[in-house]
Amino acid sequence: MQKRVLVLALFLSPVASLTPATADQGMWTFDRFPVAKVQAGYGFAPSRTWLDHVRLSSGRLPGCSASFVSPQGLVMTNHHCAVNCLAALSNKMQDYVASGFYAKRLEDEVKCPSVDFLQLTAISDVTKAIAAATVGKSGRALLDARQAKERELRNACGQSETVRCDVVSLYHGGVYDLYRYNRYADVRLVFAPEFNVAQFGGDPDNFNFPRYDYDLTLLRVYQNDKPAATPDYLGWSKAGAKADELVFVPGNPGGTRRELTLAQLTYLRDVDLPRRLPATAEYRGILEQYQTEGAEQKRETNETLFFLENTYKELTGEQQALLDPQFFGQKVEEERALRTAVAKNKTLQAQYGAAWDELARVQVRKAQLSASEQFVASGPRSRLFSYARTVVRIAAEKAKPEAQRLPGFDDASLPLSMRRLQARVPVYRGPEELQLAFWAKGMREGLGPDDPFVKTVLGAQSPAQWAHALVAGTKLDDPAVRLELLNGGQNAIDATTDAMVRFAVAIDASARTARRRYEDEVTAPESKASELVAKARFAVMGTSIDPDATFTLRLSYGSVKGFPDASGTPVVPFTAIAGLYRRATGADPYELPKSWLDAKPSLDVQTPMNLCTTNDIIGGNSGSPLIDKDANIVGLVFDGNIYSLGGDFGFDARRNRTVAVDSRALLAGLRTVYHADRIVLEIAP
Amino acid sequence: MQKRVLVLALFLSPVASLTPATADQGMWTFDRFPVAKVQAGYGFAPSRTWLDHVRLSSGRLPGCSASFVSPQGLVMTNHHCAVNCLAALSNKMQDYVASGFYAKRLEDEVKCPSVDFLQLTAISDVTKAIAAATVGKSGRALLDARQAKERELRNACGQSETVRCDVVSLYHGGVYDLYRYNRYADVRLVFAPEFNVAQFGGDPDNFNFPRYDYDLTLLRVYQNDKPAATPDYLGWSKAGAKADELVFVPGNPGGTRRELTLAQLTYLRDVDLPRRLPATAEYRGILEQYQTEGAEQKRETNETLFFLENTYKELTGEQQALLDPQFFGQKVEEERALRTAVAKNKTLQAQYGAAWDELARVQVRKAQLSASEQFVASGPRSRLFSYARTVVRIAAEKAKPEAQRLPGFDDASLPLSMRRLQARVPVYRGPEELQLAFWAKGMREGLGPDDPFVKTVLGAQSPAQWAHALVAGTKLDDPAVRLELLNGGQNAIDATTDAMVRFAVAIDASARTARRRYEDEVTAPESKASELVAKARFAVMGTSIDPDATFTLRLSYGSVKGFPDASGTPVVPFTAIAGLYRRATGADPYELPKSWLDAKPSLDVQTPMNLCTTNDIIGGNSGSPLIDKDANIVGLVFDGNIYSLGGDFGFDARRNRTVAVDSRALLAGLRTVYHADRIVLEIAP
Repeated sequence: MQKRVLVLALFLSPVASLTPATADQGMWTFDRFPVAKVQAGYGFAPSRTWLDHVRLSSGRLPGCSASFVSPQGLVMTNHHCAVNCLAALSNKMQDYVASGFYAKRLEDEVKCPSVDFLQLTAISDVTKAIAAATVGKSGRALLDARQAKERELRNACGQSETVRCDVVSLYHGGVYDLYRYNRYADVRLVFAPEFNVAQFGGDPDNFNFPRYDYDLTLLRVYQNDKPAATPDYLGWSKAGAKADELVFVPGNPGGTRRELTLAQLTYLRDVDLPRRLPATAEYRGILEQYQTEGAEQKRETNETLFFLENTYKELTGEQQALLDPQFFGQKVEEERALRTAVAKNKTLQAQYGAAWDELARVQVRKAQLSASEQFVASGPRSRLFSYARTVVRIAAEKAKPEAQRLPGFDDASLPLSMRRLQARVPVYRGPEELQLAFWAKGMREGLGPDDPFVKTVLGAQSPAQWAHALVAGTKLDDPAVRLELLNGGQNAIDATTDAMVRFAVAIDASARTARRRYEDEVTAPESKASELVAKARFAVMGTSIDPDATFTLRLSYGSVKGFPDASGTPVVPFTAIAGLYRRATGADPYELPKSWLDAKPSLDVQTPMNLCTTNDIIGGNSGSPLIDKDANIVGLVFDGNIYSLGGDFGFDARRNRTVAVDSRALLAGLRTVYHADRIVLEIAP
Repeated sequence: MQKRVLVLALFLSPVASLTPATADQGMWTFDRFPVAKVQAGYGFAPSRTWLDHVRLSSGRLPGCSASFVSPQGLVMTNHHCAVNCLAALSNKMQDYVASGFYAKRLEDEVKCPSVDFLQLTAISDVTKAIAAATVGKSGRALLDARQAKERELRNACGQSETVRCDVVSLYHGGVYDLYRYNRYADVRLVFAPEFNVAQFGGDPDNFNFPRYDYDLTLLRVYQNDKPAATPDYLGWSKAGAKADELVFVPGNPGGTRRELTLAQLTYLRDVDLPRRLPATAEYRGILEQYQTEGAEQKRETNETLFFLENTYKELTGEQQALLDPQFFGQKVEEERALRTAVAKNKTLQAQYGAAWDELARVQVRKAQLSASEQFVASGPRSRLFSYARTVVRIAAEKAKPEAQRLPGFDDASLPLSMRRLQARVPVYRGPEELQLAFWAKGMREGLGPDDPFVKTVLGAQSPAQWAHALVAGTKLDDPAVRLELLNGGQNAIDATTDAMVRFAVAIDASARTARRRYEDEVTAPESKASELVAKARFAVMGTSIDPDATFTLRLSYGSVKGFPDASGTPVVPFTAIAGLYRRATGADPYELPKSWLDAKPSLDVQTPMNLCTTNDIIGGNSGSPLIDKDANIVGLVFDGNIYSLGGDFGFDARRNRTVAVDSRALLAGLRTVYHADRIVLEIAP
């Protein structure tokens, strides 16, 4: 295979055909959308009106994306984006997550607690205003001046209950834009299918394609207790999209790290991922086996395991991308081109030229300090420990002048920490022990059995003995105990015999020292050099490339297209409802709900179910509409394939794919499976 | 860090200082030991007499190495090399593995079942004889002619109960040597310490240094029921070795793969290890948690977990080596030098020049077929499944003419398969279920949920349901049931409702097809091209480099030297007994036996405990003596550091280290902890 050898070859010969921004790459802002490029590639130039209409039809939900699909405020998003609302509305009698939900009449629509919908109504460039306010300033003064200016701009924009204004930093500070949103705080649940068909295939199918999910939820925004009027909404394409057709995805990609240098990517590939992946896999194995020990054990760890499995897939996808010679070769070429451009310009070279080598230097130190950072500075990721550390640190920090406190312990932040400490959250002692023991085992391995910190933590105990004693000896799962310690201050901390608090006290000095060293020698110099690289990039490329994702509204263009799988076999871009039934074994996670089993005879099983496209998206784009050039909905984005995970570092046009539910399946489900007639009429009359 | 970027740099510029055989590298045969090189590096030239003496003082045990340490046949090896003997001699009343063993008088020494000791008495070059017998032949005819010649040579050498003769192929067929051994079949147990001090630190300390193990066992070879006279034995150095001192390790390194090409190493680094490491880690987690469920669960899986943890460390060490830019850079340079030399010679280029590209081509196919090979062709690594597959295949293969049968089912091999099938071996249903379910989960992920093979295996079940049903539905753990199926032939196979047999039958055709395809498209072409590369290497380098290890007697030279740890901090080459006590927490695996706790006041805790050296060794060298230039024992080799695991692919002089018990600690333990006075008198009078 000679994967890396191909990289060597790329490095040796100038590859003229490789340009930094390859076909279809880009999470573009609406005000700087590359219309000419799309026109050149696809023969369609979105007009300003088109762009404004799509922007106003799109929206943001907590952590997700969404769109208006009717003039009466009907909102389309993913089931997994609304699952919190479904859970909050459920009770012992009725589990809407499992069973789904359908408001047969408008008056049956129920308000989701703590969900709001943001519609981006205006974008204005405030780069000059920010620059003017901060000119000649540096360090703390610069930060203060920028924050003051941002506050001023937000206030001038008319921030209110229904209007939200954000100053958004793009290109790592190259551009500042003011984003003005309409905020809809009354969001109600209209329709959701059963969990088993929304998340059909569970973890095995997560980030995979071919795929068969019906990951839909419909919400509605209200104003004054009435459905809001939303004149900008997306129409419905009953015909769906064809292979190779131009499609767009408006949405809110959460974050990308495409500015990382080769040194940073190499650190991830050769140091960080080879350590984190097996550790994640081992802990996953522990939890999987723990789950088999009983229903209670399963319940206690379901959420943690779900999160862990998702992380594991993400890390795997990142590793695959970085190990792929073509992908890495593209990054090599991008960096070469950028450094060459910088080197050609004396001013740029003087300002930014040293940043790459500095980042390479920091990676060496990062590798050396990683065990100390992970174990000594951070401590175990246990809820009980986190309570203990918080009470110990609040007592210590409150006694200091505000300027000398640790971040997160200033007067403004303290109330939040104290509220969190008092919140009644279930703590499961079994999983806490597992987590602590696994951490201690890793710590002993990472630091070595003779390390003084290891001796301080474990003393004469094995990791399992230590974890057991610690959990058995603490009452921090009781909010009253935490409150008492909080109110008692340093005296209470000094006096308590609670084992977890005593542990947090015992390691606090070492933890603070390790944290400070890591910040001084890794975090601070890395962040400084990264900023220089980002500035160099902006100086050379300007807005000809798209900015890294910032969980603000973007538009990506692409086309319906399959990809070669791991063995090189082509995967076609559409699946059909027939495949859903073929894949359904009846055993979790391939179990179909009764509604779909019953509806089978009435469905045209040739109807396209899911599809994949070349659009450039990332986490946060879930719930985005997939639209055609008439701005009609041809699908609902809910995932990417495994290669999309490398999208964090760069876009790989060969195989990074967006995965969506086809508009035809969405409609067939609403009509034939769920008989949601009033909704069908509303979205596709 | 830019790990791989350094490799790029190496590749770009000719690095004159890097030569294929770097300092101290080499597992040399005794007849071609590089005396001049040692003389040049260390000012000492081992004489022929010296080499013969060391060779005759050394020996081979099953899977291990050993040496004579007295003229009365006393043999020194590792505890972990004799643990099978200790276990076999133990019973419910007395567990010698845990408690250790000491024969106070000669007549208390007990015979180890099935241990023999091989002393290499003569080496003769038979390359020409083999070449003459095979000239002009190829394929099956060549194989037959070579085997006939080897048989003839072995017989002529005087093979008998007490003499063993082997034709050893070195340099992948470049050299054939006839090795003649004295075979001692009566090997008795003399002394062993407790498991807890022999394997102090268990898995966390395995392949690590600093280290504190007392991994010693003493045996004695007998002839005619009397201690054998062994005039060639190694003397004892009471003073031990000093830092930087020249030291030698005679022993039997098991196997290395230093001939692998960059394409093959890249496959391991970028495809194989990134897949196997997390899978091993996840299964390790499952077993770790299973062990906590009860004493019986722990007992059932102890051996499997031990094996798995060792594998995990080995894979980790291999990965670290391949990810290290200097290490990989050395391999890049070696291959470049070899290919350049081949290209310069028309004959060599015509014969061998295409082999590297062919191997690169095969790696691509290997990656594509790896899931099919792992899941379809091999099936689960379950004992019950293996029984089922064996009975199914014996029935099918016996019916065919011998020439058409699968390998392992010819008339000569069948009796062994049938004996294995009838052996009474404990089978644990819980761990079998775990193993099967884990395999099925991996299979579904590797092949995809729609794969027909996955559908055949799982049907409508989840992996856990399937594994449970399979184990509940089989009686193959009963040897009588297996025998009945064996005797019943195809009719019995067709008639049985045993779930595991039915499963083996259901997948047999697919498995055979997948196996044949993998052999045709991967195994065969890879082996053919590898042979060409090995021949090219021998044609260019001849015996100027050492041959890959073959579990035959070798001699390596080096010096006592520390190494830089992962963070670059120097590790000193000696530990002291004081460190053993400091590391002992009292909790497993850092629990010292009472003997060592009691002896503490009487021991000089400054005595060196373990040491590390630059000798080039690998698995199979366990139990080797570490000797100085007077051929006196300065230590007992029992392990390597984590970097020694890359020794499979190449020797990294910077940090590959051999780990040994210091001769001074060995003696102090025998004298002061165990009061083994007659032994002390015998080895160090």
